[in-house]
Amino acid sequence: MRHWSFAKGHGTGNDFVVLLDREDMLEVGEAEVRFLCNRHVGIGGDGLLRAVLAKHIVDWDGQPDLWFMDYRNADGSIAEMCGNGIRVFVRFLLQHDLATGPDVLVATRAGLKDVKLLPDGRLRAAMGPVRVADRGVRVCTADGEEFAALRVDVGNPHAVSFTDDLSHLPLHTGPSWSPLEEFPSGVNLEFATVLGERHVALRVFERGVGETQSCGTGTVAAAAAARLHTKDDQDPPVTYVVDGAGGRLHVELATDQSYLTGPAVLVAHGDVVVPEEG
Amino acid sequence: MRHWSFAKGHGTGNDFVVLLDREDMLEVGEAEVRFLCNRHVGIGGDGLLRAVLAKHIVDWDGQPDLWFMDYRNADGSIAEMCGNGIRVFVRFLLQHDLATGPDVLVATRAGLKDVKLLPDGRLRAAMGPVRVADRGVRVCTADGEEFAALRVDVGNPHAVSFTDDLSHLPLHTGPSWSPLEEFPSGVNLEFATVLGERHVALRVFERGVGETQSCGTGTVAAAAAARLHTKDDQDPPVTYVVDGAGGRLHVELATDQSYLTGPAVLVAHGDVVVPEEG
Repeated sequence: MRHWSFAKGHGTGNDFVVLLDREDMLEVGEAEVRFLCNRHVGIGGDGLLRAVLAKHIVDWDGQPDLWFMDYRNADGSIAEMCGNGIRVFVRFLLQHDLATGPDVLVATRAGLKDVKLLPDGRLRAAMGPVRVADRGVRVCTADGEEFAALRVDVGNPHAVSFTDDLSHLPLHTGPSWSPLEEFPSGVNLEFATVLGERHVALRVFERGVGETQSCGTGTVAAAAAARLHTKDDQDPPVTYVVDGAGGRLHVELATDQSYLTGPAVLVAHGDVVVPEEG
Repeated sequence: MRHWSFAKGHGTGNDFVVLLDREDMLEVGEAEVRFLCNRHVGIGGDGLLRAVLAKHIVDWDGQPDLWFMDYRNADGSIAEMCGNGIRVFVRFLLQHDLATGPDVLVATRAGLKDVKLLPDGRLRAAMGPVRVADRGVRVCTADGEEFAALRVDVGNPHAVSFTDDLSHLPLHTGPSWSPLEEFPSGVNLEFATVLGERHVALRVFERGVGETQSCGTGTVAAAAAARLHTKDDQDPPVTYVVDGAGGRLHVELATDQSYLTGPAVLVAHGDVVVPEEG
């Protein structure tokens, strides 16, 4: 049995177990991630955020004293970036005096990311460029209803549909899409309703997860799709308000960059007993 | 903001937030329970177990220095007893030197409960009498399949069906039952497969919750129903092995009493920040 210190936090309901592992000493394999993220027998989280000094990361050739965000999905797989997770990660660094704000550079598998602490306590993370494809796809929910969808690339694939009534959508099982070969590795599906000018409500069905309270890239994708959908012709940067199940996020769409702004909360700190055998 | 100490533990995947509140000083209302049990923005648990000295409990006229298990469901409502929870509760007491084993008497809303620490570390809790009704009901799953079910009373109502294939059952939405008026306040639904002599596999759909990893009273109900279903004519006490999604439990069926035996694990200890406004 190993006793590890942990924190638990969330950004708009997207929640994470956070481990501080400055010198890369913890052995956090798939089994450990699955255990820690298991909501019934572990701590519980959508993913794990491990804070390691970048100098310990193989292939990292940037500043050695930055913090690297080792992000893992709850199933133990490695992920590049997480728009809600990076806010929780930076909140953890700031609250533990491991970084000084308001600007914090974070090393991630998707490169360096700039996160800014705003005066009101929210955090604003650069999410990279977002691109809406010319041609769309079709999405079909479990009850057979079909939707036109816009393909959006935020580093990962999204298909965003617009509908006037989000509440009735049966998202306990995954919608399908056509043509199937458009997303051979699956796709994240967003359903949005335009509530007003640059203001949408959102439900997200995440690839390999199911419906979630909040999805950072999905929120950015929904804003970019809404911009096209509403024929918004204002010059960038433009800011969208996106209300998801877990709360409100703001998306700035600039020319070659997008920014996601929202809350991040550390809820608990403690010690967890990690079994030797996963 | 209040900082409370907590533990998190589980018995066969049925998980609980545990608070030590010896002198009944914490103000744990519905909002606090819902927050602590919220898996995304709080700690996460199927329920909350608060340890209070019995002398602080209004209407308690037994020994004042016993520990009272103030059990709440995740939605904040009050519950009388929980067969998995009481094992976690006693594990907590023993591990923190708040009680001495092997026999621990716990005050609950369902009266005094005797829990025994076995030499192998498992805990055995008295669950009260269990009664299988003469007449059955019918249960219908979301895909329209119908099952005959036995009515079982373990202090709370259960309907137990037997089937040869548990894996295909669509339990993401709740089965219905008929006649509806049999269970005006709802019912816990168990589906069991006989695996061998006094050995069943189990899936449980808990009233007001959905499918769960494990349900203490449901496990006892399934054993009692299996005894009738298999025409087991051995004199009591008889012991059944019940394999649920969260692990293995043993049920002893005695003449006017039942006992549930299984593991209980404390996974984490820590401090949680509880918002003043729920």
